Parts: sequence; C-alpha cells; structure tokens
Amino acid sequence: MIPTAINFAEKLRRIDTPWSPRVGAELNDCIPLKSMFKLVKIHGDFVWHRHEDTDEAFLVQSGELHIDFRDGTRSLRAGEMLVVPRGVEHRPHAQAECHVLLIEPRGTINTGDAGGAMTADDDVWI
Amino acid sequence: MIPTAINFAEKLRRIDTPWSPRVGAELNDCIPLKSMFKLVKIHGDFVWHRHEDTDEAFLVQSGELHIDFRDGTRSLRAGEMLVVPRGVEHRPHAQAECHVLLIEPRGTINTGDAGGAMTADDDVWI
Repeated sequence: MIPTAINFAEKLRRIDTPWSPRVGAELNDCIPLKSMFKLVKIHGDFVWHRHEDTDEAFLVQSGELHIDFRDGTRSLRAGEMLVVPRGVEHRPHAQAECHVLLIEPRGTINTGDAGGAMTADDDVWI
Repeated sequence: MIPTAINFAEKLRRIDTPWSPRVGAELNDCIPLKSMFKLVKIHGDFVWHRHEDTDEAFLVQSGELHIDFRDGTRSLRAGEMLVVPRGVEHRPHAQAECHVLLIEPRGTINTGDAGGAMTADDDVWI
C-alpha cells in the first residue's frame, strides 16, 4: 500500500460551509513529544530509510517531490501532502530543488534507521 | 505577547543546503493524541475562545486571515502560519473567504471554551 497524496485545494472545493473544519489527514497516535514544523530544501536523491517510532508528514511548498516506496512512487506538487506511516521504507528525491514543510516529533532524525553521511543535525531552528 | 506569524518562503530563503531540515515552529508538548490536519473555510467573524489543553496551528492556503488577540491582531496570507498557544484567547476573522489548514489534536472543538451556535461537528473527514 502506497500512501495517498492529499491535495488541499481539491479537499477545500468539497467544503460548502464556512467555519466547518474537515479532517484531511492525521499524524501519529500517542506520541508524547512536541510536533516540529521543519523546512527543508530537497534536491537530488536521499537514502532509503524508515522511522520506527513515528509517522512523517511531507507538505510541498514549491517544486515537485517524489517519494519512492518499495511498491511504487508518489509525486507531490505545491499544496499537496503525504503522510509516511511509521516503519515504512521510503526515499525522497527531486530532480530540481523542491521546498518542503515536514511535520514530525522532536528528535526525528532525517535518515531514520539508515544513518550515514546525509544525517543532518536535528532540531536546528531558523 | 502576540504570537508571531511564520513566513515559510522567508525561512526557506535562509537555508543554503539541501537535505538540512530547519525548525520553523513547534506545536504542543506531551499531547498523547493523534494530530489532525483539518481544512476550513473562514469567512466573517468567529467567536472569542481559548483551547485550555492544546496549541493550535493556523496555516493559510489562500486569502487573508486575521486573528485578534487581547493585545492586538495578526494578519496572515498564503504560506504563513501562526501557532496560538494553549489557553490564549483568540478570535479568527476574514472579510473575504480564506482557506486554512488547522493542525491540532483529535478532539479539539472549534469554539473551545466558548461553545455556542458556531460549534462544528468534530473529526469529520473529507
């Protein structure tokens, strides 16, 4: 099962009434940590990895993001989001620079279980 | 203290390196519930209210959103986000229809402690 891309504009077109929130996606269950909003520039290929303890939301701000799963690939553009479930192997990549908002718990390491040279410092504010 | 508006494009301009996530905002500490992504159309004036148990993130997709606080007002456009801290009274409003992504824990009622006629059904998926 490849996670579905969520298109916010498409969801919003189906809402008729002001002040009536409708759920488009959800993240995690029982993660007693702060949720962090992280901005990242994605360019080229990342490493295959998984996050054993958390889901991870990718919300594309600009450009086109591809996420490979073992069963196939999802492509996301600005205004689209995808939630990678915990434990699911994935590999983000982008041919041209792509800007993404990540939403995930404090302490989530970008390379997950894979480690290696692409591991970034965590919880750096901008 | 009025919460600050976060402009994602401005934050992204300050990131030099691909694959180096930088934190732009955070939400809650120790809320053992799913985080829900809710889409809402905002038009006209909402009620003054507060959420005693949770922060609430407003991420504007289109239009212009104003949030009144007891000390002043913040205005947000597409690509901007604001986190209302738990317990802080606020009143969203928009002269023209505005589209917003809310991020908050499951079970958060839109009118918080205020209740009343604008209270919407919670956790309705679209």
